[in-house]
Amino acid sequence: MQKSYLMAPGPTPVPEQVALRMAAPAIHHRTPQFSRLFRETHEGLKYLLQTENDVLMLASSGSGAMEGAVVNAMSSSEKAIVINGGKFGERWGKICEAYGLEVLWLNYPWGAPADPAQVEELLLQHENVGAVFVQACDTASTVAHPVACLGKLVQKHPRTLLVVDGITAVGAADIAMDRDGIDMLLVGSQKALMLPPGLACVGVSTKAWEKISQSDMPRFYFDFQKERKALAKDTTAYTPAASLITGLHEVLAMIRQEGLAHLHKRTELLARAARAGLQALGLELLAPAAPAASCSGARLPESLDGKALVRYLRDTMGVTVAGGQDHLEGKIIRINHMGYVDSFDIVTALAALEMALHRFGQPVKLGQGVAAAQEILLERYPS
Amino acid sequence: MQKSYLMAPGPTPVPEQVALRMAAPAIHHRTPQFSRLFRETHEGLKYLLQTENDVLMLASSGSGAMEGAVVNAMSSSEKAIVINGGKFGERWGKICEAYGLEVLWLNYPWGAPADPAQVEELLLQHENVGAVFVQACDTASTVAHPVACLGKLVQKHPRTLLVVDGITAVGAADIAMDRDGIDMLLVGSQKALMLPPGLACVGVSTKAWEKISQSDMPRFYFDFQKERKALAKDTTAYTPAASLITGLHEVLAMIRQEGLAHLHKRTELLARAARAGLQALGLELLAPAAPAASCSGARLPESLDGKALVRYLRDTMGVTVAGGQDHLEGKIIRINHMGYVDSFDIVTALAALEMALHRFGQPVKLGQGVAAAQEILLERYPS
Repeated sequence: MQKSYLMAPGPTPVPEQVALRMAAPAIHHRTPQFSRLFRETHEGLKYLLQTENDVLMLASSGSGAMEGAVVNAMSSSEKAIVINGGKFGERWGKICEAYGLEVLWLNYPWGAPADPAQVEELLLQHENVGAVFVQACDTASTVAHPVACLGKLVQKHPRTLLVVDGITAVGAADIAMDRDGIDMLLVGSQKALMLPPGLACVGVSTKAWEKISQSDMPRFYFDFQKERKALAKDTTAYTPAASLITGLHEVLAMIRQEGLAHLHKRTELLARAARAGLQALGLELLAPAAPAASCSGARLPESLDGKALVRYLRDTMGVTVAGGQDHLEGKIIRINHMGYVDSFDIVTALAALEMALHRFGQPVKLGQGVAAAQEILLERYPS
Repeated sequence: MQKSYLMAPGPTPVPEQVALRMAAPAIHHRTPQFSRLFRETHEGLKYLLQTENDVLMLASSGSGAMEGAVVNAMSSSEKAIVINGGKFGERWGKICEAYGLEVLWLNYPWGAPADPAQVEELLLQHENVGAVFVQACDTASTVAHPVACLGKLVQKHPRTLLVVDGITAVGAADIAMDRDGIDMLLVGSQKALMLPPGLACVGVSTKAWEKISQSDMPRFYFDFQKERKALAKDTTAYTPAASLITGLHEVLAMIRQEGLAHLHKRTELLARAARAGLQALGLELLAPAAPAASCSGARLPESLDGKALVRYLRDTMGVTVAGGQDHLEGKIIRINHMGYVDSFDIVTALAALEMALHRFGQPVKLGQGVAAAQEILLERYPS
């Protein structure tokens, strides 16, 4: 007998009440009952994204929504500024290139936040920039890019959109679509939305709708205008991912009950505790300058086989955390703190990491990372 | 949003696969399908109790099974030796007295194990002792009584039964009904059996069946002979607690898969870790001489309001542990380690306790109890 602990930055644990709601007998998706649920879910999404805009619901993973954003936001003659500070930044560029678009790459070392001045420079150098593509948090590098700063810049350019992948940020950090000047904001179900994968949501601004109406890019499934028409009738253009939308209805009720301000504060507290714990173990943070609220990454000692450590945590200890991708494979560890996560998940992740590092011959003092996290977690529990 | 952690010595957490199995559509309990499930469950119970005897399944809590044991094991003219080292030892005596039986009390301070020599002495002094009643573990005092030693003694007395409440012991500690000379062995569903409350099981030896056939005690619902006849037909005398028996079928499959030896070893390891953690926090164990495998108790500092501490842990931190009962109310804390419990549940309980003690002004070093537990828990994870 061994318990399983899911502590990777997505998929994240599904709350019991959400799992039970999704397990209830299905409602047919072309009925007034489902339309009401859909409408309420849409209202909840607007609350979550802090927007008055439409928020589309797509039966796809986050990558599908990213493709959808590209083929709707851009026109074939336009250039794309892509902020690439992690695997998902790179994905924006790859999608653009797959559609023959010219990409102006802004590459950053994984873990470093984008520099708005460089974006501004590119926007002034190039006349025909259709959109700036960025992650609010790049899960691969656990960095938070300065989305609100970028929003201020891009707003000055009437033909340029700010397209933000908020897949591992919305529901964890305070990303407000309208306040921050975001034209497309993407969310995925299996992250802070605490759902299984398969549903993606995209908020679309008025400025973006204007551009979309002029876009000449090829598209069929990810046709945002078609989705907008369907949304006005409380449905989707194609068959909706009904069980996930039902789960999302429950999740959004939970989030409303907690309140966004409390949710962001709680996540930030867990994030601080996780970072303090990792640092107390002598590990270097991956994104010290701009760490994400959703997940924390730390570099492992160079002598250590990080892939083996992550495997040991998962297969021997039952604790699933994430390792590194691409050039960081085997070199880092990543721990989740968005979604259905509480203090003792952070304690568990750190305690397990301490024990695994000890088993791998590292000079770790057991309890030291936990203690550093506890100091901060105490803020959650008033006297 | 706050997660709930159930860490009291019963009810214990129900494993997901067991909860799902119990949530499946009900099988009618008078069908060949249920009879097969019932037969397999009975075989599993014999494996769990380490016996060739019949094991009855009663739709009742553990206290009901205790009453059943008294009214079947005893005759009205007989005396009962009751080992009372906790609330549940006391309950044996109260049941006997409710039926007008003469009780020979052997009282021990809560936390002290019974002395077999004193039992032997009473057995030699009194001719007409119908049974010795004892807890394998008294949950209230977290003590383990020396059941196997008592078995050896009682076996010498052909008219005396050894009746063991194994409600918080079977499935945690190595209690083998046949090997240990136990005549009635009781188990409750909401402890190491990882089920909701409402089902109790009683193994009955050949020696016990002979005595039961001569018993003149009044009884109707808890008529073991009637249950034995029904058991031979793969059913119960009255309506069985069908969903709990279905869950038990799943639980016993899990236990068989793990193997009893591994289960006992794992529980003992968690118990050692919990005790080490409590002691590292400067707390005194409640039952240092004979601590139970199923749950650990520790005395709280006298200056501390223990009831408020337990309430704080539950209501502010989401961690449900047990306080003390009767004269130990407000003075102790009890932590579970039987059933669906793994290393990081112990870590969580200790981390939460450290933080709560800190909040209550105790000079606790955060992480110290966790570290002591981690040292031991590492044994569970080989290099």
